[in-house]
Amino acid sequence: VKRVLVTGASGFVGRHSLPLLIERGYEVHAVARGAIPAAAELRWHACDLLDDRAVGALLAEVRPSHLLHLAWYAVPGSFWSAPENLDWAAATLRLVRGFAAHGGRRLAAAGSCAEYDWSHARLAEATTPCTPRSLYGTAKNAVRACIEQVAARLGLSWAWGRLFFLYGPHEASGRLVSDVIAGLLAGRRVAVSEGTQRRDFLHVEDVARALVALLDGAFEGPLNVASGTVVPVRDIVARIGALTGRAELIDYGARPLPAGDPVELVGAVDRLTALGFRPRYDLEAGLAETVAWWRDRERA
Amino acid sequence: VKRVLVTGASGFVGRHSLPLLIERGYEVHAVARGAIPAAAELRWHACDLLDDRAVGALLAEVRPSHLLHLAWYAVPGSFWSAPENLDWAAATLRLVRGFAAHGGRRLAAAGSCAEYDWSHARLAEATTPCTPRSLYGTAKNAVRACIEQVAARLGLSWAWGRLFFLYGPHEASGRLVSDVIAGLLAGRRVAVSEGTQRRDFLHVEDVARALVALLDGAFEGPLNVASGTVVPVRDIVARIGALTGRAELIDYGARPLPAGDPVELVGAVDRLTALGFRPRYDLEAGLAETVAWWRDRERA
Repeated sequence: VKRVLVTGASGFVGRHSLPLLIERGYEVHAVARGAIPAAAELRWHACDLLDDRAVGALLAEVRPSHLLHLAWYAVPGSFWSAPENLDWAAATLRLVRGFAAHGGRRLAAAGSCAEYDWSHARLAEATTPCTPRSLYGTAKNAVRACIEQVAARLGLSWAWGRLFFLYGPHEASGRLVSDVIAGLLAGRRVAVSEGTQRRDFLHVEDVARALVALLDGAFEGPLNVASGTVVPVRDIVARIGALTGRAELIDYGARPLPAGDPVELVGAVDRLTALGFRPRYDLEAGLAETVAWWRDRERA
Repeated sequence: VKRVLVTGASGFVGRHSLPLLIERGYEVHAVARGAIPAAAELRWHACDLLDDRAVGALLAEVRPSHLLHLAWYAVPGSFWSAPENLDWAAATLRLVRGFAAHGGRRLAAAGSCAEYDWSHARLAEATTPCTPRSLYGTAKNAVRACIEQVAARLGLSWAWGRLFFLYGPHEASGRLVSDVIAGLLAGRRVAVSEGTQRRDFLHVEDVARALVALLDGAFEGPLNVASGTVVPVRDIVARIGALTGRAELIDYGARPLPAGDPVELVGAVDRLTALGFRPRYDLEAGLAETVAWWRDRERA
C-alpha cells in the first residue's frame, strides 16, 4: 500500500492535492495543526509540526511510505523575512529524519523559485546559482541542500518542486490575485503597481497535480513547477478587471513596485515537461475559474 | 554582566575556551550532555541540545547575553556524512531562535572550511563560493546562511568562525595527529598516506582564543580561523616521529589518499589578522606541546 503523509494539507496547495492522491490510490494521512474536517476518503491528524515529540508519535503511528511536505510559514508579506522560517527549516530537517527512521521511502516537498539568484531572469535547475536574497529562499534552499546530501544515506528517494507564482481558489487574502478579485467584487477601489514586472504564474490545481505526479514518480532532485511563460502583472490585473466587469476601479501605479524587485522571473520547464506534465489551465481559463469561485463564495 | 552559554563545552575546542572566557570576565555557563565536572569558576548545565524543551528551559533559566556555540556531531570519520548533521543543523537553528527570544545579543559559532568549494585551494570569506561537497559542510553552511539572513531581524550580532584543521591536547582518537602520537608512543607501527596533501593546521588553544576573541568583539559575519600557511601532512607526521623518537615505526603510503581529496587547502587570514589575532603556537612548538601532553597522560 502507498501510504502518504501530507503536511500543510489544509493549505493552498495541500487541499488541492488531496483528491489527486486519493485518485492515484494512496492511503492519505493529512496533517493539520488545528481543527480537522471530517472526511471519508482520508484520515486527518491534528499535529503541530514544530513539536518534535508530536511529530515522532505521528510518524510512529502512521508509518508513511510517502511524504508530501507542503507545510511552511506562509503568512502573506511577512513570510519573506519572518524568523519563523528558521523554525520550519528545523522542523523539516527533523521530519525528514523521522520519516526515514520510520520506514519512509519517497518524498516530494515544496521548494521555491526564491531559492535562485534573482539577478537571472530565466531560472533553470541545472545552471542558475542558488544564492537566495530572502530569508525564506535561504531557508528553503538550506533544507534542500541538506536533503540532497543525505537522501541516499537515509535510503530516501526525493523530489523538490520549486514553486513559482500561484493563484486560484482558496488563496489567502493579502496576495495579488486574491486581493484584486475580492476588492473588485466588493466594489472597492484597488491600488496596484504599474505592473510592469513579468512573472511566471501557474494555477494552484496544476501546481498540486505536478507535485502529486512528482511524488508518485521517480524523478530525483529539484524541478521547477512553473508554466514556462511570463506575463506582466498588469495583464493579470486587467484580465480580472474584465472578468469582474469592474476595470474602472483599478488604480494602476498607486503602489510603488517593491524596491529591487526583478523585472522578469520565469521558470525553465524542460525537466517538468520531460516528465510528461502539461498544465490544464492557461492564464485566461484559470483566472476565469478563480473569479467564478470567488463569486460563488460571495453568494454562499 | 556578560553571561555566556557555551555549547560543546566538554569538547575539543570547548574545554580550551572556558578559561579564556573566565579571564575575560564572563559569567560562564557550560553545557554538556552527560556527566558534569565540578568547577568553582563556572557553572555546568546538563542538557541534551537535541531536546527542544530542555534547551528552552535552560535558556529561560540562564538568559545568556552571549552564546558560544561549538556543539555539533563530531565522531571522527563518520561526521562527514552522518545523518546526525541534520539534527545538529535543526538544533542550531532553534537554539539561535531561543537565544534571541530570551534576550541574547551576541553569538559566535564554529563553522568549517568544509563550507567552501574545495576545488579552490585558497579559501577566502568574500570570494570563495560556498558550495560544499559533504553533508557536514552543507549543514554548517545551511545554518550559517540562515543566521546571516535572520540576525538583524532578531537583534543579534553574530560571528561565524570557520575552523580549518586542528590539533592539540584532548583531541579524540581517530584523527591524524592524535592517532599518530598515540600509536608511536605505544610503540605500534602507524600506517599513513604518502601525506602529499597540504593543509592549514592551527593549535586548538589558538582556535579557542580566536573564537573567544570573536565572541568578545564586534566583527559580523564569517571569518576563517586558520594559520594562513600550509604544510604537507607528511611533514606533520615526520615531526611527530622526530619528537617521539620513533620515526621508524611510520609506514608512509600504507594508506591511500582519500579519493577526491584536494591537494591543498589554506585559509585566507586577512580578516582574522585585521582583528589583531596572532597564533601563539607555530606548528613545531604546538606539536612538541601536544606530544608532551600525551606523554604526561600515559604516565598518569
